[in-house]
Amino acid sequence: MANAKPAASKPATPPPVIDRAKLAELRWLVEEFNYEYAAVLDHCEIERWPEFFTEDGVYRLIARDNADANLPLSLMSCEGMGMLKDRAYAIAHTEMFAPRYIQHFISNIRVRDFQDPYITAEANYQVLETLIDEPTRLLQSGKYRDVFLMRGESLLIKERRCIYDTVLVPTCVVYPV
Amino acid sequence: MANAKPAASKPATPPPVIDRAKLAELRWLVEEFNYEYAAVLDHCEIERWPEFFTEDGVYRLIARDNADANLPLSLMSCEGMGMLKDRAYAIAHTEMFAPRYIQHFISNIRVRDFQDPYITAEANYQVLETLIDEPTRLLQSGKYRDVFLMRGESLLIKERRCIYDTVLVPTCVVYPV
Amino acid sequence: MANAKPAASKPATPPPVIDRAKLAELRWLVEEFNYEYAAVLDHCEIERWPEFFTEDGVYRLIARDNADANLPLSLMSCEGMGMLKDRAYAIAHTEMFAPRYIQHFISNIRVRDFQDPYITAEANYQVLETLIDEPTRLLQSGKYRDVFLMRGESLLIKERRCIYDTVLVPTCVVYPV
Repeated sequence: MANAKPAASKPATPPPVIDRAKLAELRWLVEEFNYEYAAVLDHCEIERWPEFFTEDGVYRLIARDNADANLPLSLMSCEGMGMLKDRAYAIAHTEMFAPRYIQHFISNIRVRDFQDPYITAEANYQVLETLIDEPTRLLQSGKYRDVFLMRGESLLIKERRCIYDTVLVPTCVVYPV
Repeated sequence: MANAKPAASKPATPPPVIDRAKLAELRWLVEEFNYEYAAVLDHCEIERWPEFFTEDGVYRLIARDNADANLPLSLMSCEGMGMLKDRAYAIAHTEMFAPRYIQHFISNIRVRDFQDPYITAEANYQVLETLIDEPTRLLQSGKYRDVFLMRGESLLIKERRCIYDTVLVPTCVVYPV
Repeated sequence: MANAKPAASKPATPPPVIDRAKLAELRWLVEEFNYEYAAVLDHCEIERWPEFFTEDGVYRLIARDNADANLPLSLMSCEGMGMLKDRAYAIAHTEMFAPRYIQHFISNIRVRDFQDPYITAEANYQVLETLIDEPTRLLQSGKYRDVFLMRGESLLIKERRCIYDTVLVPTCVVYPV
């Protein structure tokens, strides 16, 4: 947490050595990808969620405390297409949670590295949740730490780590973020 | 709502067939337009609001339930310049609401289609509201579903549907979103 | 506040006269700068904060009421590198505040003017705060009003005014926004 960690004197995030035009192009691809990802989840098309990943794609939801301490514990972890599809199926066919709308706001998107065909990128996200007859509330805020596989101009997630600040969630995290 | 609607197996949002450079240029225009639109509203220049629309421009504020069910009911609907100006004038000369600051956060902006001179686009929005001596709160979150008319490099709204998740608003929606 | 100020009939924000390609390039630089600025603060690397400013750089945190009335009063004001470093040092070595995570969401970024080598730009920001075992809350929302010095492709802040809507903050503003 903030005052437990002395400020580092070295830059934690050295600027990537890719040229500006390439960087702009890659960021554009990542933005379009993330907005489509958000639109599909916000549309409740949960069964399409695995389509955003490679066959060996990894999805992890990690509390920031654990991420900062390099602890392996995840709130949710899916490794490979089988687990991703299993998770999506389970959510799509579960009727145990109250109806709600969710909406993703993704900002501060940056490309950090490019080792063809892999793009390392990050972003900030907010997930807002609205239950019937309740005001909209902030369900979770956090950061994506991503590695994308680029094929031509289309991207797939090789690894998405969602590192969330919001440890105390109002009820439960049903959907992927 | 989420668990009331089975996940669709077909893509709800097929990718547009415009080339990437054109798409990037169009998204840039839509971004600049939306940020200017937000700045004018956040500046309380409500009488300038109709300037963002075509003569036959349409503005609708629709609850997501109704939008999803294709029901025509709008919380607010203005069709054409006369109604837009009338609405703006009414707000500018009403003193019945408490002083407040509003701020729009627009993200996830995407161009979905381009049939020259019409751009179909979407975005997510949050409207934050601050009343005197109160913490800032989320007034409304939702999505823009837009059709813009492009003339050269300037855009005008032909249709803006604001589809909001937040059915329960703290007090009332005074301003356009 | 909203109903205390009649809507202006003249545009408060005339469009800049820079060509589109240049404007897109400049906005891209400002975006990358702001996202890096946010990442460093959100990472608690407060001692790196002065690196984002010129030697004579100015940072001010101003309530919107005062900014609108052109009143000089700031909640926080640092003029020049000495004051910026002093402020950063004080925060880094203070243990009087509770541990917390902060996260910046910066959107609606626009370039308003370019008088080589100075870029005038603006943006909206939200700062979210998470204390241990509490839900994430909105600490502050506001606008950046910036003048950047451009050297090649790297920017430094010559002046950043953070004009905040949120007068009532939950506890205190420890970090720069």
